[in-house]
Amino acid sequence: MKTPKLLLLSFIVLLAACKENKETPKANSALSENEKVDAANIKSIFNTALTQGKSYEWLRELTTDIGGRMSGSPEAAKAVLWGEQVMKDAGLDSVWLQPAMVPHWIRGEKEVANYIVDGKKIDIALTALGGSIATPKEGITAEVIEVKSIEEAEKLGEKLRGKIVFFNRPFDDTLINTFSAYGGCVDQRVNGAATAGKYGAKAVLVRSMTSKIDDYPHTGTMRYGDIPESQYIPTAAISTIAAERLSIHLKEQTKIKVYFKQSCKNLPKTKSFNVIGQITGTENPEKVLVVGGHLDSWDLGDGAHDDGTGIVQSLEVLHLFKTNNIKPKNTIRVVFFMDEEQGGGGADAYAKAVKTSKEIHIGAIESDAGGHTPRGFTIDANPENTELLKSWKKLLAPYGLHDITKGGSGADISPLKSEAVTLVGYRPDSQRYFDYHHAATDTFDKVNKRELELGSASMASLIYLMDKYLYSNSPIKP
Amino acid sequence: MKTPKLLLLSFIVLLAACKENKETPKANSALSENEKVDAANIKSIFNTALTQGKSYEWLRELTTDIGGRMSGSPEAAKAVLWGEQVMKDAGLDSVWLQPAMVPHWIRGEKEVANYIVDGKKIDIALTALGGSIATPKEGITAEVIEVKSIEEAEKLGEKLRGKIVFFNRPFDDTLINTFSAYGGCVDQRVNGAATAGKYGAKAVLVRSMTSKIDDYPHTGTMRYGDIPESQYIPTAAISTIAAERLSIHLKEQTKIKVYFKQSCKNLPKTKSFNVIGQITGTENPEKVLVVGGHLDSWDLGDGAHDDGTGIVQSLEVLHLFKTNNIKPKNTIRVVFFMDEEQGGGGADAYAKAVKTSKEIHIGAIESDAGGHTPRGFTIDANPENTELLKSWKKLLAPYGLHDITKGGSGADISPLKSEAVTLVGYRPDSQRYFDYHHAATDTFDKVNKRELELGSASMASLIYLMDKYLYSNSPIKP
Repeated sequence: MKTPKLLLLSFIVLLAACKENKETPKANSALSENEKVDAANIKSIFNTALTQGKSYEWLRELTTDIGGRMSGSPEAAKAVLWGEQVMKDAGLDSVWLQPAMVPHWIRGEKEVANYIVDGKKIDIALTALGGSIATPKEGITAEVIEVKSIEEAEKLGEKLRGKIVFFNRPFDDTLINTFSAYGGCVDQRVNGAATAGKYGAKAVLVRSMTSKIDDYPHTGTMRYGDIPESQYIPTAAISTIAAERLSIHLKEQTKIKVYFKQSCKNLPKTKSFNVIGQITGTENPEKVLVVGGHLDSWDLGDGAHDDGTGIVQSLEVLHLFKTNNIKPKNTIRVVFFMDEEQGGGGADAYAKAVKTSKEIHIGAIESDAGGHTPRGFTIDANPENTELLKSWKKLLAPYGLHDITKGGSGADISPLKSEAVTLVGYRPDSQRYFDYHHAATDTFDKVNKRELELGSASMASLIYLMDKYLYSNSPIKP
Repeated sequence: MKTPKLLLLSFIVLLAACKENKETPKANSALSENEKVDAANIKSIFNTALTQGKSYEWLRELTTDIGGRMSGSPEAAKAVLWGEQVMKDAGLDSVWLQPAMVPHWIRGEKEVANYIVDGKKIDIALTALGGSIATPKEGITAEVIEVKSIEEAEKLGEKLRGKIVFFNRPFDDTLINTFSAYGGCVDQRVNGAATAGKYGAKAVLVRSMTSKIDDYPHTGTMRYGDIPESQYIPTAAISTIAAERLSIHLKEQTKIKVYFKQSCKNLPKTKSFNVIGQITGTENPEKVLVVGGHLDSWDLGDGAHDDGTGIVQSLEVLHLFKTNNIKPKNTIRVVFFMDEEQGGGGADAYAKAVKTSKEIHIGAIESDAGGHTPRGFTIDANPENTELLKSWKKLLAPYGLHDITKGGSGADISPLKSEAVTLVGYRPDSQRYFDYHHAATDTFDKVNKRELELGSASMASLIYLMDKYLYSNSPIKP
């Protein structure tokens, strides 16, 4: 009874088993002798990442032993000490802490919001936005007005006075890259309160920055911009379920009054640190390639995909160099940047130090787009180096790295930008990222071990090629 | 304090927002006028899938309302009725059931296995393999011998007599495509009992087919092959945690006796059905393009990624044709195949019916590799049609479909193979698939809505192109 299917199964199984072995030599035959050496080294980097990688265990420690780690928090301080220790344990040539001043915003008590419809209380799942002020102690109760954009709010102008303004433009789900959908909506979260505050609104609620319809609110940063402090108003994100429901109720009823209370607070800036370690270059110790992510996170979840994965992948790059006994010509430096989420204090401190140092930065890679399956890299460099990096596609495509294109790098390394520096953003698959981003669901269990490890190996392979070839043929020297 | 970072953020956000809009026209300028029409239609298919797709809700019904649905089970019968109803609700031109005889294996009571080390009882998480016989009612207690391959077992030969043989070769984690790792191990599960039974072993335990180290056993099919029924022995899969622990204990102690009991049973074959529906072709109604997955699953989980996702994606292809008002030249037929897991009874019945029918099958796509983010297609066709499909890469790459290569199609459609038929396997990312495959963890919550929908749109786009261009220039006509 099972024979026809199982003969078939055996056949498929054989095919699958042979596929990888068959494809490698075929691909290799199109490579030069030099490229074959590189292909073998890259294969070795991937093998090591997938069998002796440490990133997954590091991530477990950072996310489940320490947890969420907002700039200025005790958990962020613990993460600094943890980072210093794991870098030392990894046997780097040198490890140090670099001071940086960072914001210290605290959430306070759990936020509360609700409204009454047909005599029934409807609770709103919400979270204060980072940097927002509190409501008065007794909370705010005001009529809600829904808008879909900053422009719409600006047009309403004085009509916003005394209201709670509800920004409810959803992600454009037709965009394939979810970062584009985020980019098309996040102005509501960042600038909503400044816009509505200017016209005397009482507060701003904003739909969470995600496509996923669930009851988890997603926090994130906001700014009051240039408006006077007297116009500052409290702002919070509400879950997509709450946003959809509130919008329906607003269509059904003429007026809805929402009660909203939060007790967050901006404390004075505080001292924190970037954690830095390196393998010193054998030929050009003064030339530096940086690989990094950010050590801080939001507080609702454990900062797993944002950006625990970037942290452990960055350290794994150096660990893979050591495990494979690759001695880089240039210095390979890992930076755990502090405070990407709330102000970039760590990025500023690092960039400032670079300016006064005799070191020459030749390139940098940032991993801050989640720990999902690798897709490629975006390159922010001069045209020659952009083309050079693109020319490595044939070496990287066997690992699913097809999207190697011009584009941005990342918030922490972009202050290093100059004509001679090659900046790169690591780009994993984006589909799941905003399901968890800045929400309570961004936890260790959402990270797949192999996807994480493939990312480390992808970054290490690019750093290996950059270390070997960058500027060897370029007219622009750093 | 937040301005530098936030100016930067605004910049990144703008970049991200502009990226997609900027890239589309640039890519389009390299396309012919005809290709621009196709690109627009494909974009429209993706837009519709991501905003009006029904696959996610269908999957919720199939996996959480019905659940796991083994061949011959009451749940499989429910799934047939459900399938017929959703096809009718989707407004297909015709919907029918095609009878197929399928195995009827039942699991019986929850399996038990344990052993004693230093006076402490160690429980083994295990699951009977599909098709296996039961142990005697009182169970089996016997000394365990560990092997890493069928070859090693064959060499030990008579030394296996009276033993429980433990096949413990793990996945090769260095293989990038996890299906290759599966292909390199699954002979232990399929043929382990036949090999050990031949030499008088009492039972076979096999390490679960996954890279993930956890305590969930993964079931799957096995066969006794040509050995006489008197040599049939019971076989079960144990969790990877149990396998690692047992292996360590076997190294520490000379002898370990395992107790093992299961009460599964092979009942007589029973009648079930493929569920079939179609949109009739406007020009060549007798020429058929099939799109399908399998309706049956294993019983431990809810059959979400294997193969609930393939089922709902296949129906969504036809739904996307209707929503976009695309009238295919050829007949587009969706087949929910019954019994892929335990014998291919549905695939046999379908292939047999094709042979005696006047219809001409020109192509088929199968989705049976999970519902993860799209990567590409493997093509099993004559060289002309293989090249034709590869030439569509520029239309498909914007959606992450880069891996369009020669390869196998799928167990349910491969009986349709002939020189003139173009068979295709849909290939999503493979990294997470074997975390859940055949285990209790293969549930609805493991499926990401956008990944599922992108898969439907990928398949629909390929069917759209196949319907339009297949055989228009090929020397081999079906």
